[in-house]
Amino acid sequence: MASSYAVQGARLWRSIEELGAIGADSSGGVTRLSLSAEELEGRAYVAAQMKAAGLEVRCDEAGNLIGRLEGSHPEAAAVITGSHIDTVHAAGRFDGTLGVLGGIEALRAIKEQGIEHERPLEIVCFTDEEGVRFGAGYLGSRAMAGDWRSEWLGLTDENGVTLREAMVHASLPPESAWKAKRPEGSVHAYVELHIEQGRALEHRGEPVGIATAIYGHRWLDVRMLGQADHAGTTPMPLRRDPLLAAAEAMLAVERTALSHGGVATVGKLRVAPGSANAIPGEARFTVDVRHEDGNCLERMTKEIEQQAIAYGNDRKVEVLIRQTDAGEPVLASEKVIHAITEGCRVANIAASPIVCGAGHDAVAISAVAPIGLILVRSKDGISHHSSEWSSPEDCEAGANVLLQTLIILANE
Amino acid sequence: MASSYAVQGARLWRSIEELGAIGADSSGGVTRLSLSAEELEGRAYVAAQMKAAGLEVRCDEAGNLIGRLEGSHPEAAAVITGSHIDTVHAAGRFDGTLGVLGGIEALRAIKEQGIEHERPLEIVCFTDEEGVRFGAGYLGSRAMAGDWRSEWLGLTDENGVTLREAMVHASLPPESAWKAKRPEGSVHAYVELHIEQGRALEHRGEPVGIATAIYGHRWLDVRMLGQADHAGTTPMPLRRDPLLAAAEAMLAVERTALSHGGVATVGKLRVAPGSANAIPGEARFTVDVRHEDGNCLERMTKEIEQQAIAYGNDRKVEVLIRQTDAGEPVLASEKVIHAITEGCRVANIAASPIVCGAGHDAVAISAVAPIGLILVRSKDGISHHSSEWSSPEDCEAGANVLLQTLIILANE
Repeated sequence: MASSYAVQGARLWRSIEELGAIGADSSGGVTRLSLSAEELEGRAYVAAQMKAAGLEVRCDEAGNLIGRLEGSHPEAAAVITGSHIDTVHAAGRFDGTLGVLGGIEALRAIKEQGIEHERPLEIVCFTDEEGVRFGAGYLGSRAMAGDWRSEWLGLTDENGVTLREAMVHASLPPESAWKAKRPEGSVHAYVELHIEQGRALEHRGEPVGIATAIYGHRWLDVRMLGQADHAGTTPMPLRRDPLLAAAEAMLAVERTALSHGGVATVGKLRVAPGSANAIPGEARFTVDVRHEDGNCLERMTKEIEQQAIAYGNDRKVEVLIRQTDAGEPVLASEKVIHAITEGCRVANIAASPIVCGAGHDAVAISAVAPIGLILVRSKDGISHHSSEWSSPEDCEAGANVLLQTLIILANE
Repeated sequence: MASSYAVQGARLWRSIEELGAIGADSSGGVTRLSLSAEELEGRAYVAAQMKAAGLEVRCDEAGNLIGRLEGSHPEAAAVITGSHIDTVHAAGRFDGTLGVLGGIEALRAIKEQGIEHERPLEIVCFTDEEGVRFGAGYLGSRAMAGDWRSEWLGLTDENGVTLREAMVHASLPPESAWKAKRPEGSVHAYVELHIEQGRALEHRGEPVGIATAIYGHRWLDVRMLGQADHAGTTPMPLRRDPLLAAAEAMLAVERTALSHGGVATVGKLRVAPGSANAIPGEARFTVDVRHEDGNCLERMTKEIEQQAIAYGNDRKVEVLIRQTDAGEPVLASEKVIHAITEGCRVANIAASPIVCGAGHDAVAISAVAPIGLILVRSKDGISHHSSEWSSPEDCEAGANVLLQTLIILANE
């Protein structure tokens, strides 16, 4: 049976447009780097929206902007939703902002419509999810999860401004940021509304997806060292061409992902010396491997490494592999998945499970609370670009699923 | 029966060292760009060596420096040997210079030892073989072959200096350069001594090779256009990854060369956007195809193009191919090959036929005279680098083969 409760889609859409005008840049998109003038203006807008929604607004020591709606049991562990409004350079208008504005709209609907709920509800606009300005991301959500690192304060942006200076400029207390940590057991559940940033939902024809997990990842830097030679004077059998070994290894990367599930990508490849008439002496490429199962992720990575080395050996090409980054998969909580699934049913919105391919604040929060993610269809899968788009109908659908999910979780 | 005639290897080696000191640069190598102060100093050295060898020295209208030794039939068509002393940036000390200094040494031996010869002999130091300074090469040899282009005069170097200005600075008459053309039938044969710039002779264990042909070439610029997507959120089956199509096409380039003979190389490859966590939207690479048979070269090129397009189609990747350069193969003359082979026998030097993979002044001269090439073993195949090296013994062996070959050709 469908619920009579619903968000106001038009109001949500207007807020997306209004926030999207803050930091609008010459790319046709939006640039609101964390703690920049543009992002601080965006935060002021968000705070005003929280107040207009009837929420109690505060900012924690890590700069997380929090709007709270008390329930009938103020002492109960809170149900939190949230996301971020900082952006990459020349970004779109939906990444992060949909979760913040959709969360405000859901809490506003609960307040306006007098929907009963026991647990307190909070909407959080987290500090610096993207990590573009200072080179480290999830700053606010990691602080809330008790993982604040004081060494971040010395990180600098491209103008040499430190995170410490940027926090002071924003009236935040750098040395107290760690105090944003939430006490053990104080968060009943965290659910985040976010655009998919991929094409799977579009391909399925569904507006919303229920994340079951967030991919873990391994990043590899693979260097293949052969012998640079003259392209005309070196017979084929005498060559030690690292680019051909790289070509074989790249195709093996694809086969590995096709056989194990998950995804694996070579996104960057450089060839030296890089002349049309010279056999390369070096080919260097990245591999991005992702899977929702940690053991499988490890097996894929090993397999990719072994194959790269074997293809190198076949061509007398030296292979040097360095792991440059790693993150473990995060499973969504059964409890939250169940609440979202029920929320979709109540909101009468078709949705099916999906593995989330991108990282979000939910990854950091998973360290202190059960998490779940509601993903909204992205047009052509495009993100981090001015043409990033989710339709007003899909945004409204996502916010309605969030509304119903919050009601369910807040009454558990 | 071995000849008693021979060059003075030590004198040749000393001249290689002396010329190698002119334009010596911080790379440990040599930079003598065409008509630069360094190259003009090198030309003065070469002219002095020609005079010391007892040659009649002149400079033609295209700046080719010519040393001539009259034979018993001064009116007969000349036998010419030659090469160049201009270099690429941070070059080695043998590319071109071995042919010029080896040719001077061979003519000096003929003069000193009073070796009888009917035809006049000439050693030519050609203007701008490398084409690095003004972007067009073989300038002197093309002028001698009647292929001077007046539009070259407007070409500029990286400082904005035109070829015209550089010629005037070197006291050369830009508007008369075309007059360097040799009349039809005035050249009996052209034979060039040059380092191999490859590893085939080293692999064979032979100091000298007798070129049967110079590869023709086709250069392709291949653009593969897929769809840039997020590496985490785009399932493998939904991808249109141009780098994987490029990987398949590159391996097909190698298979094509292995099945047809000749060589084919991908030397340059660029990926956009080129982020570790983004599926590439474009992969762009060069293909350098070379073969000694024009028809086969054409077939190889077509096959490579067709395969690139087919691999692109399989992945819904658009493939755009542009031919950026082409040169037809040049066959060495049977007469000159025969003379070199006989010269090797008389000089008692082991040598076998080889296809020449790099272009030389001989390519241009082939338009007006039968040509042949004597190649000298290169250490590790390295060229265009400070570590370019041919041993004193191999340089002497090459010069002795040249000496005997010139004697044979000049008495035909």
